[in-house]
Order: sequence, then C-alpha cells, then structure tokens
Amino acid sequence: MSQPENRDRLEPVPETPGARFLAEIREQPAALTRLLEHRAEYARVAAAAADRPLVRMVGHGSSDNAASYGVYAFGLLPGLTAVRDSISLTVYYGAALDMAGSTVIGLSQSGRTPDVLEYVIRARRAGAFTVGVTNDPDSELAAAAEAVLPLEAGPELAVAATKTYLNQLGALGLLAAHLAGRGEAFAGAIEEAAELLEQHLPALESATSQIAVPFASVGRMFAIGRGPEFATAREIALKLLETCYIAAEPLTATDLAHGPVAALDSLFPVWAVAAPDATLEAVVEATARARAAGATVIASGTAADALADAQYVLPVPKPREPLVAPLLSVVPGQLFAGAVARAKGLDPDRPRGLSKVTLAR
Amino acid sequence: MSQPENRDRLEPVPETPGARFLAEIREQPAALTRLLEHRAEYARVAAAAADRPLVRMVGHGSSDNAASYGVYAFGLLPGLTAVRDSISLTVYYGAALDMAGSTVIGLSQSGRTPDVLEYVIRARRAGAFTVGVTNDPDSELAAAAEAVLPLEAGPELAVAATKTYLNQLGALGLLAAHLAGRGEAFAGAIEEAAELLEQHLPALESATSQIAVPFASVGRMFAIGRGPEFATAREIALKLLETCYIAAEPLTATDLAHGPVAALDSLFPVWAVAAPDATLEAVVEATARARAAGATVIASGTAADALADAQYVLPVPKPREPLVAPLLSVVPGQLFAGAVARAKGLDPDRPRGLSKVTLAR
Repeated sequence: MSQPENRDRLEPVPETPGARFLAEIREQPAALTRLLEHRAEYARVAAAAADRPLVRMVGHGSSDNAASYGVYAFGLLPGLTAVRDSISLTVYYGAALDMAGSTVIGLSQSGRTPDVLEYVIRARRAGAFTVGVTNDPDSELAAAAEAVLPLEAGPELAVAATKTYLNQLGALGLLAAHLAGRGEAFAGAIEEAAELLEQHLPALESATSQIAVPFASVGRMFAIGRGPEFATAREIALKLLETCYIAAEPLTATDLAHGPVAALDSLFPVWAVAAPDATLEAVVEATARARAAGATVIASGTAADALADAQYVLPVPKPREPLVAPLLSVVPGQLFAGAVARAKGLDPDRPRGLSKVTLAR
Repeated sequence: MSQPENRDRLEPVPETPGARFLAEIREQPAALTRLLEHRAEYARVAAAAADRPLVRMVGHGSSDNAASYGVYAFGLLPGLTAVRDSISLTVYYGAALDMAGSTVIGLSQSGRTPDVLEYVIRARRAGAFTVGVTNDPDSELAAAAEAVLPLEAGPELAVAATKTYLNQLGALGLLAAHLAGRGEAFAGAIEEAAELLEQHLPALESATSQIAVPFASVGRMFAIGRGPEFATAREIALKLLETCYIAAEPLTATDLAHGPVAALDSLFPVWAVAAPDATLEAVVEATARARAAGATVIASGTAADALADAQYVLPVPKPREPLVAPLLSVVPGQLFAGAVARAKGLDPDRPRGLSKVTLAR
C-alpha cells in the first residue's frame, strides 16, 4: 500500500465513466507482480496447513468465483479436496461440523464481509486452521484468522472487482502450489503471465471495443466454461450483470445441455471459455448446440480458436502452466463488460445500487 | 414401476401442451408415498455409510439442485460435511483425490448421465462407498454403484423434471435422517408433507394460474433463497429457463447484494423463497432492495407472508420438520412455470432442443 504508484491512484481521477474500471484492468500485471513479493508468506502458510486434508473456501461475488478456481488449484496441485463451503450452515444454522481436519480460507477483498468474517470466527473455534485472504491486512477478517495472506492488489476504487479477482486467483494458486512443493515454479509462471498480459492488453482492448457495440441491445447471456475456466465464466457473467445490467448466467458447458439450452435463441448470446484440455470437447459440443439454436457465440480462452462455430474469437496467450490460464482468460470478459457498459452509457465505476464494501447479510 | 397407476400413465395421454408436466406435478404426493415404501433400503445404506465423514454428491440440472439441498440435510441432521463435488476434476483431469473417507452419491433420474456414471466408477476405484440415486434401478448407474437407492417416482415423461426432483429431496433427506438415527421420524414428516401437498395443490394451481399471464412478457428473473431453500430457488430458476425460456438466475439472498442487484429494474422480477429461520432476515433485506430498485417480487416458501414488500404471495403450508419444507416450497414455482409457459403458447412437456435423457458430455 506504500508504493508511489498506489498513492498516485488515490488522487482524484478524471470522472470519465468507466475510467477507474479500465485503469484497474490495466494495473493487473503490476498487481500480480506485487502479490509475488509475498511469496514467502504463502510458503509459510502452506507449511502450517500441510496436514489438513480438506480445504473450505468461503466468499461472495467475485471472491466466490475465485473459490471455484481454488477447487481446481487444490485438487490438481496438491491433490486436496477443496470446496466452496456453505456459509449459512455454520453461521445461521450453527451446524456442528467437525473442522479439525480443515484449512479454512476466508476470501474478502475488503476483509469486512459480515458472514465471511463470522464463518471464519466459528470455524476457528471448531478446530480449523483459518486463513484470511484480503486486500486489507488491517481488516477484521485479518484479525480474526490465524494467518493472513495479503492480496496486495493496491486500492481498488471501481465497484466492480478486477485486479483483486486476479490476485485472488494468484493467491489460491500460489498457496496450492506451495502445498504441492511447486511454489517457486508456479510463482515464475504467474510472473510470466503478468508479462504476457502486459504485452497483450492493448490488442485485447482494441478487439473487445470493436465488437462491443452490437451487444448494447442484449438483455441476457450465458457464460460457459468447465474445469478451472468455470470460475472465468462465473466472473465474466458477474461483470456483465453488475456493469452492463445484462442477465448473464454462468453454467458449466455440460449443465447448459441439462435444460437451459432450451432458452437459447438469436437474442441470447453465449460467451464460451475454452481451454486446450480434456474439457474442450464438452465446450465445443455446447457451443455447437448454441449455434444450432441461433445464438451468437463469443469464443475466448487459450483454446478460443478451437470453437469453429463462434462468430467472435478473443483468444488469450497460453501460459506455460495451464492453471495460470484463468488469470489471463478473464481479461477479455472484463474489457468487454467495460466496453458494453460504455456503449450503453452506463458507468462501470459506479453501478447503481452498489457500494464497494458490501455489508449485506 | 409395476403399480397399475404407472401402467396407466404409459398409455397415450392427451397432447394438450403441458398436460404431462401438470399431471406429473399432481402425482408428486403419490410419488413421495412410493419412495417411503423403500425406507428399509435407506436405513441399510445409511448403516453402510455410517463411518465416512465426507459426503460427495454429483449430478447435473435438477439433480445438482437436489444436491444443494443435500448439503443442508447432511449438515443439519447427522452433522456431516456434504459437498456438490466437481465432476470434471475426477473425470476429465484425473485428480488423485483420496476418497477412502467419502460416501459418494451419484444423482441421475435416468441413471445414464455419462459423466456422473464415470465419476461413480472412478470414485469407487478410489475407495469411496458409492450410492446411485436413480429412478431406474436397472440403469448403468445402478450397476456401477455399490448401493442403489430407488427414487420410485414412476415414469416421468415431461422433459422438465418435477416428481423426480421432489423424490430426490426426499431420498437425500431420508438418508441423512437415517444417518442421524432419525429415519422413522423423518419418513413420517415426509408422509405428512405429501398429505399437505395433496390438500393444497388445487389452491396453489389456482393461485399460480391467476398471476401467470403478466409474466408472459418477462425475459429475465432472479430466484433467491438461502440455506436449504437455495435449492428451491435453483430449481425454480431452472424450470423457468427450460419451460418458459426466461433467463432466470438463482442467487443466494446475500449474493444478490454482491453485484447482481445493480441489474434489477422494473423489467426484472424476483422470485423469493423465505423460510421462518435464521436466514429470513437476509431474504427480507434482499427483497426490500429488489423492491427499491423497482422490481416486482413474488414471495413464496413457508415464510412468504414475512416478505411485506412482495406484490404476489404464494405461501405453502409449514410441515412439522423444517427440512421437509423444500419439498413443498418448490411446487408453486413448478406450477407458475407451467402456467407462464401456457400463457406464452409454449409446451413445457417438450421444450425445444431438449430430450428426456441428457447424454451431453
């Protein structure tokens, strides 16, 4: 929080609608680099969590989307079962769950989300090893948890989260990699991804701006993905909801076929995130069905080019570590949401009815 | 499958659009009663699962919605951690998870969902105790799992699931209750709920028909709930998607405030499911925000009357066992979806692009 760069951004910024949102998207490579300065803390927390077989993650909104990524990061790197735990079971219903074998990760950008905080307090009492992942190391969440992992994304002023989301992915991936004894290699892959992102941002901005305008009249969308990229689909859908007021619903590529595909027509575009792995065939199949129903398809992700049916293709570069790809593949969606909001005359910095710190129960 | 009643329903039915969907909604009390004839099997499977601390549930569509309910049934009755597990982690990525301490529940009405079947096969190899919950005890899923729990809902011919969903809730609740040593009491509560439903169905049909017509012009909705009723919100949203082609997104009452609330306006109605428990305040708060944004609110659930801001109120009777309430509170949503589909000239028996057995990857 003490870098000159951050102090600069606390100065008044020009009040062009969406200026902060775009500035914070552009800051993501620098934010990731700052996260890596804390890699020693991630290694220490991993060592303390090492003998707990279950990882329970809790968060709302973008933080919960990051937890979807965590399921795969912990599952694929150290081979641990990681779950997005029910908050209400513990906080509202007082369920007597045994948490002695659990690491609990509370995700809150502000560190002040009331039920996440309360969950962490109760989980700690129930025997869990509790970790707060937050952008504010002086927050109540940081004080309540036994260990704190700083996001160090710098101040985020636009209401819709961008760089804190990327740093949450980086944080969960880094912790998972350290648990697998591969922390340094993973940190190197994040570093490289930050560089790739820096290089490709101008082209991505231009590509998303070019296609955004026709989507100003769209009222509903699906965002699909599978595996680690399901988190990306969820986060892009949330950006479209909160900044463009599009009813965007995230679905796994397979769940699309279990009912929702019926709703598709030419007024219902689909954003598809494709990765070059074993889930690709399911995503290819789902987008073919969407096209057959007349839906416009936007392909993104590191395997966007494999979606032959798509009318729009927004690929991102392929990092050396597949689990780092979601840090890149969300960015075209962030930029697209910003561009569609601008086309609609909305201000993605200040969506109506929202404030930066959400204190809702 | 051998009752005269079921044979009757395999005869050709009048092809009025939605006739099967409505007939199957009406059959739900009888379907629940048939489920209870298998209570001894549920007790036996509970005994076999007793020493496994983690319950992993997998399914797509309505089956996955039922699993959301299972999280609370297992959490609140025997105090077990139950999760909607990632299918792709095991099936597509071959993650090496330790499943020795797990009971795995594969949920598939047809027993033929490809990746659910594959997950169960792999989980069994990885040391889990595997249970298939299916409407077809001769299916591949039933053959692959160590134990089978029959849904016994009778043939379901409408593509959109109704009675198999209710029986999945009943099945998960019954298994959880047996694990808690309360199987008989819970079975009695289901029996009573089936009677309550039988009595109230005519009034619910009439109430939902009366309010459905204005929603024929609606393109998008949110469905909110929390705790065990989040499953209800998910299932109602899915019915609206697949039978009415409304972009209906389920959210916990709290997640609504973390971004999506920005999208609300007078064209974006909210279906709210309220239960008279510790989550009620969160649901009341969320619906107040929805009303403040100009959204129409439909209140349902056993505490529907507590949502003072709602324009429409569709309460259901309160069963003696709170965990049985979701078996009732989904019914107004099913009926509403059928009525809106009729108002739009759609056929909820045969949504476009769907078949009864989904073999999508």
